[in-house]
Amino acid sequence: MNYTLYIGNKNYSTWSMRPWVVLKYFDIPFNEKLIKFDSFADDSLFKRTMLSVSKYGTVPILIDDDLVISDSLAICEYLAEKHNDLALWPTDSKKRAIARSLVAKMHSGFQAIRHYLPMNIEAELPEIGQIILRDHQDVKNEIMFLDELLSSLLTSKNSDGDYLFGNFSIADGFYAPLCLRLKNYHIATSSVLSDYIDTICNTKGVKDWIADALQEQSFVAMDEPYRIHR
Amino acid sequence: MNYTLYIGNKNYSTWSMRPWVVLKYFDIPFNEKLIKFDSFADDSLFKRTMLSVSKYGTVPILIDDDLVISDSLAICEYLAEKHNDLALWPTDSKKRAIARSLVAKMHSGFQAIRHYLPMNIEAELPEIGQIILRDHQDVKNEIMFLDELLSSLLTSKNSDGDYLFGNFSIADGFYAPLCLRLKNYHIATSSVLSDYIDTICNTKGVKDWIADALQEQSFVAMDEPYRIHR
Ligand SMILES: N[C@@H](CCC(=O)N[C@@H](CS)C(=O)NCC(=O)O)C(=O)O
Ligand SMILES: N[C@@H](CCC(=O)N[C@@H](CS)C(=O)NCC(=O)O)C(=O)O
Repeated sequence: MNYTLYIGNKNYSTWSMRPWVVLKYFDIPFNEKLIKFDSFADDSLFKRTMLSVSKYGTVPILIDDDLVISDSLAICEYLAEKHNDLALWPTDSKKRAIARSLVAKMHSGFQAIRHYLPMNIEAELPEIGQIILRDHQDVKNEIMFLDELLSSLLTSKNSDGDYLFGNFSIADGFYAPLCLRLKNYHIATSSVLSDYIDTICNTKGVKDWIADALQEQSFVAMDEPYRIHR
Repeated sequence: MNYTLYIGNKNYSTWSMRPWVVLKYFDIPFNEKLIKFDSFADDSLFKRTMLSVSKYGTVPILIDDDLVISDSLAICEYLAEKHNDLALWPTDSKKRAIARSLVAKMHSGFQAIRHYLPMNIEAELPEIGQIILRDHQDVKNEIMFLDELLSSLLTSKNSDGDYLFGNFSIADGFYAPLCLRLKNYHIATSSVLSDYIDTICNTKGVKDWIADALQEQSFVAMDEPYRIHR
């Protein structure tokens, strides 16, 4: 077992963040290869590099020996199987099914939030947050749904710890980037969700990712709909 | 174990089709509840019904006793765990990781195909297929990518059967609706992929779903961008 994880810029790349945080939280050793975003055009350095690693041409990619895994969720499922002593998913079969439903929703949904509130860890953008909420009912609806969904898990008896299913799991890794978006655009949430966002920001793995993101200090125009420079 | 699967119209609902086909193929007994699409507005009969079953308000939903699983992929993962003697995923750990990468791509990607070529099992729409290919380079690119991805799996030594990973697995269930789209819009593909589409259409479970879809004979305007009546 000798993992290499390809990722994009830590300030911007939510999909990269998810398995990275899971690996760090559970102390699973891996090598990291950060491929900086320039653009997603076919002849960009990012695309040429990633297409030489995997047909899919995206980050994250996990390499284990001759195996290439090409999606954040597929990577987490692989890690959960390989390290089944570590409980990357909740150990109870029903909780695990609920956790997988939640993660699947993140994997395929929340399209409006993902479009209008892209992650930008170093930027505080409260006015933009207000404007987006004012102008985009779909973003508002998704945030209401998200708040209800996470709050009800956090206050249910399924969660006898600070995390969505008690102990930290892949589900928390998947929702961590969303927490950072809510925080940086100063989106008001229920107090249960606010507390959870604080917990997430102080969680091993997430903390390290944020610290690295703040060090990056790069400006990638395609990821910056709301700033013209740093 | 007493499964109930909520699904939408068989003629249109690709996400419903995926776990249904997997259940049928592997002879896992279940009750089916078909909730007809009227619209996805909050006050539609479909939405009111599904929101009373699950917060997510979508189909498919699998009920197992008091457990509610709210996503096609989470459902398949649950079934794979519960019936681990049946090999719903490839049994080899590396093949399984590649299968999960492929399924994750279907779960979150192919957005242009999904938008412009919605499934409509009873309709033959060859001219529409031509127009979409003429006008939408993104659809063309996705189809080229899809063809390469599936063909390379089907011709690799990983696949020593007629299916993507040898024996039929969740991966084939996930790509079955895409096969039906390519067929009904008469999209030209490589001969390897054409043969696979034929195989899929004659596969237990898929065949039954198609037969049921043809019986339905309903017309739902929101799912019919290309016809004004049946
Ligand atoms: N479903 C994939 C999505 C990966 C993805 O879209 N990654 C972005 C960066 S965060 C990317 O590499 N985009 C390049 C492109 O779309 O060409 C996953 O979960 O890993
Ligand atoms: N990621 C979900 C997607 C489910 C989905 O979007 N289903 C459609 C029907 S095929 C639906 O119920 N839509 C209702 C809505 O969007 O309000 C899954 O894989 O199960």
